[in-house]
Amino acid sequence: MNNYRYIKTINGPEDVKKLSLDQLKDLADEIREALFNRLTKIGGHFGPNFGMVEAEIALHYVFSSPKDKFVFDVSHQSYPHKILTGRRNGYIDDAHFQEDSGYTNPDESEHDFFNVGHTSTSISLATGLAKARDLKGDHENIIAIIGDGSLSGGEALEGLNVAGSEIQSNLIIVVNDNEQSIAEVHGGLYKSLKDLRESHGTSANNLFKAFGLDYIYEERGNDIAALITLFKKVKDIDHPIVVHIHTCKGKGYKIAEDNKEAWHWCLPFDRATGKPTISFGEGEDYTSMTTDYILDKAQRDPDFLVITPAMPGSVGLSPDQRARLGKQYVDVGIAEEQAVAMASGAAKRGAKPLVVTNTTFIQRAYDQISHDVCINNNPVTILLNYTSFDGLTDVTHLGIFGLAAYANVPNLVVLAPTCKEEYLAMLEWSLDQQDHPVMILIPGDEVHHRQTNLNFSQINTFQVEEAGEKVAIIALGDFYARGEALSQAIKKTYGFTPTLINPRFASGIDEDLLTSLKQNHQLVITLEDGILSGGFGEKVASFYGPTDMKVKNYGLAKSFYDRYDPEALLKKVGMTTPQILADIKKYLQ
Amino acid sequence: MNNYRYIKTINGPEDVKKLSLDQLKDLADEIREALFNRLTKIGGHFGPNFGMVEAEIALHYVFSSPKDKFVFDVSHQSYPHKILTGRRNGYIDDAHFQEDSGYTNPDESEHDFFNVGHTSTSISLATGLAKARDLKGDHENIIAIIGDGSLSGGEALEGLNVAGSEIQSNLIIVVNDNEQSIAEVHGGLYKSLKDLRESHGTSANNLFKAFGLDYIYEERGNDIAALITLFKKVKDIDHPIVVHIHTCKGKGYKIAEDNKEAWHWCLPFDRATGKPTISFGEGEDYTSMTTDYILDKAQRDPDFLVITPAMPGSVGLSPDQRARLGKQYVDVGIAEEQAVAMASGAAKRGAKPLVVTNTTFIQRAYDQISHDVCINNNPVTILLNYTSFDGLTDVTHLGIFGLAAYANVPNLVVLAPTCKEEYLAMLEWSLDQQDHPVMILIPGDEVHHRQTNLNFSQINTFQVEEAGEKVAIIALGDFYARGEALSQAIKKTYGFTPTLINPRFASGIDEDLLTSLKQNHQLVITLEDGILSGGFGEKVASFYGPTDMKVKNYGLAKSFYDRYDPEALLKKVGMTTPQILADIKKYLQ
Repeated sequence: MNNYRYIKTINGPEDVKKLSLDQLKDLADEIREALFNRLTKIGGHFGPNFGMVEAEIALHYVFSSPKDKFVFDVSHQSYPHKILTGRRNGYIDDAHFQEDSGYTNPDESEHDFFNVGHTSTSISLATGLAKARDLKGDHENIIAIIGDGSLSGGEALEGLNVAGSEIQSNLIIVVNDNEQSIAEVHGGLYKSLKDLRESHGTSANNLFKAFGLDYIYEERGNDIAALITLFKKVKDIDHPIVVHIHTCKGKGYKIAEDNKEAWHWCLPFDRATGKPTISFGEGEDYTSMTTDYILDKAQRDPDFLVITPAMPGSVGLSPDQRARLGKQYVDVGIAEEQAVAMASGAAKRGAKPLVVTNTTFIQRAYDQISHDVCINNNPVTILLNYTSFDGLTDVTHLGIFGLAAYANVPNLVVLAPTCKEEYLAMLEWSLDQQDHPVMILIPGDEVHHRQTNLNFSQINTFQVEEAGEKVAIIALGDFYARGEALSQAIKKTYGFTPTLINPRFASGIDEDLLTSLKQNHQLVITLEDGILSGGFGEKVASFYGPTDMKVKNYGLAKSFYDRYDPEALLKKVGMTTPQILADIKKYLQ
Repeated sequence: MNNYRYIKTINGPEDVKKLSLDQLKDLADEIREALFNRLTKIGGHFGPNFGMVEAEIALHYVFSSPKDKFVFDVSHQSYPHKILTGRRNGYIDDAHFQEDSGYTNPDESEHDFFNVGHTSTSISLATGLAKARDLKGDHENIIAIIGDGSLSGGEALEGLNVAGSEIQSNLIIVVNDNEQSIAEVHGGLYKSLKDLRESHGTSANNLFKAFGLDYIYEERGNDIAALITLFKKVKDIDHPIVVHIHTCKGKGYKIAEDNKEAWHWCLPFDRATGKPTISFGEGEDYTSMTTDYILDKAQRDPDFLVITPAMPGSVGLSPDQRARLGKQYVDVGIAEEQAVAMASGAAKRGAKPLVVTNTTFIQRAYDQISHDVCINNNPVTILLNYTSFDGLTDVTHLGIFGLAAYANVPNLVVLAPTCKEEYLAMLEWSLDQQDHPVMILIPGDEVHHRQTNLNFSQINTFQVEEAGEKVAIIALGDFYARGEALSQAIKKTYGFTPTLINPRFASGIDEDLLTSLKQNHQLVITLEDGILSGGFGEKVASFYGPTDMKVKNYGLAKSFYDRYDPEALLKKVGMTTPQILADIKKYLQ
């Protein structure tokens, strides 16, 4: 298909500068071919990269990385930059795909400055680089590259505000405006961007100038020549400036240009049809059952309100389904703080708000969860996806810190369901009760079915699923199935029946039940899907601390794991069934 | 001085509506007298309340609370509102001062909707009230009241953005512009506010319109008649609007008008001179030693950089001292996310950033601490004030959640100094090393002096300050002095010498040391100044869980305590020395 004539000559940005304009255009075509090569085979971020091919070529043509420093927001659009900075093999050579993280990563290259994966941070990070450069009396260009979807995030707006007055030196903020977040954009600022696009940058209604910033516009955001002219104009500028470029998300693949939301990120796919080439089991999954629940609940209950910070996909809501929800659905854009505080306000006024997003993103609303929701004890339900160690394994997207972060916030009831029946009952209970803020962790494993206690009104009551002796296994949430397997292994190997407990509540302990276990148990085992530090098991260990009961907590270490094999990780931390069986023998001696 | 002729007739907002304009002006005078009565005697927020007397009278005159709903940002400016809503006795009757929390509080009055104390949340909360109102088909006015200082917070900007497009119904955002945060305002948006003030609202450079919002300006923000006219104009409006009023912070007390920063908040004071009527000990304090350290470090090290989200007072930096720091000082405005991410960028570029603020406020940067600083392992130092249970006791300002929140974040080294020598050495070590992000908790107790190990290069090495037997006391940070007292009491009461350990590191455990304690100890006691849940002691309990060592964790319950007596609280949770002595007897049996 392509012999990557130019790409193969690019060992670093200095090689980009050697090419003529026509050659740069051929290079752009080759980069798209390289992107296709990787993305058709292993998937990844599609639209953001296809839209930014020309801009990243022009940036490397005009500026001198790594002396000049690019800070990519989210960095899911940095693939062309990676191809141009010595990492082409991650795209053109299938054997090397795994060497590339999919985000900027200082461990990969001196051209990357931060490991990032959350939105709206680039301007803030860039102001820091600029400030330190100024302290040292140096003069390189600092360039933040941020998409319009990320602009709704408070941190990006804080960054614009600070850049607009506290930095009096070079700082270039490239706003890549493709009129799209993951889903459609939401927020009043997009009217200002539209005015600017339609007036070719001349509208007096200018968000960036309102933050005190200089400003320049370029309509031709996918035209290398125009972009080179533009970037040369602002290179070595002596004050902060916003460079607003208009690009086309997914540029160069009509199927993606026509359906920008679906092609923000892709599974491996067939280039001719756009159809995924891998499929998941036909069986039930938690996402589609959540979608169904939400649509049904909205019909049944006019007070029910879904609020999402730009992550309708976290619960599978398609554009059509969002339209069906109508006024019972609010997308606040990428703005987790707003989403959670808005939910608190809505709950106070009698609505039944459900905030939906991924676990890793909600941490931006830690303060709002604590201060605006939990101090006020407003009945907000926060529903989180990708809660498990075997969900997203990129270091910037881990779900393993949720228990440590939220289960220690007073008043917040954190629920960890173990099966479909329990999950749906928890959702219904949480939305209909008025006494507690609740967080529900969507299980990360396959869908199980069980008959169990579906009454949650007594907070922190654990459920004994099987009563036994000697050893009690407290297996939280989607590790309950592992607890069941361990119980069976104990019966088979050691010939006694351990007690098997489904704690259901991750944010407290059932002191009565734990006390009763002292009668005929010597060892309590906890299993949890997250880091041990600050998590569930430590609470159990602390409770039994002054007693004769032995406790062993199983979970992950406090560490930023990155792109790991999940089962190998469990073995590394010693929590496979054979390892635990060996431990039990030792502890019971 | 004043017989509060009108105030005494005001049992609720309906009584405000009965007064003539002249009477309302007299009422304003009386409210200022009432504020003087409370503030001269017990202190509190001064400038924000004196500046908003007329506006809050006019709001209650025009709108009908609680049907119409006021959401006060931070709510430190809500005293006049409280006086007008049945809570005058908290201001005019000294015996009732303690009945008033100093912030809005739904437990106090149906006219208050949220317990708040952090900034920049009012617009988000109000959008939630508005959304729920719309779902229910109701039509009351929702009014957010936010100061210009709070506008730099990302959540407020997210709120403006969402209000500017996702709410198509009544929402009134009163921006109280007094040209001041606690310190001076920082950020480019203040140029837009200045343009608007100078043009009487007609400037095309309009931040609010750039967020898609309707807008109206009133210069006479301390003129009741003008404000009544203004609020009548927007009452029952069918879409969101920003009502920008220009007020004078501290209005009515020249000393405060002339020194707005010092009079944001006041101690009890003499009205004639403005001088505080209480004084603190003459001895050393951690704040002034921090100020001295910062000024000295800046002189010694050109890479040293202080970054604060509008809280220079957290380390005692006066305007003059900030000027002396020059380019080594950045106030980003109320914008914790920006402060922390900027620090990460600055550290990456070789600066030595020190982020300073209060513990309760840094939780807004939880994501940035984890994602932007700790994943990248950039050597940022975060220095926190009011870390202790006996610092600020308002439920919205507690410092007791810091260990649970941050000490479980991977890579972050959390240091808990026990004395001056250790504190200053930790600061110096942290700023000069390049291997770890560090958080230092400024002790909340009196200044102690000790000779101890000042080498922190081996992370998580605890220091045995006195070796003993049977019982080991691990006393963290500013509870070390309580550990010393406990040790003495054990010697005296039980006749043996316990081991006394200063852990120094709050974010990990010294496994070698803990293992060695097994030789001649039966009980390990942990003492920490914060909630137990997710905290330090639980990590020790988990470590010893499978062993014969007994562990008892002492600390606070996971609870939103409010305006408590600190020593009574310690007794309530069973951690006074006599209580612990009794426990020891029991556990050693």
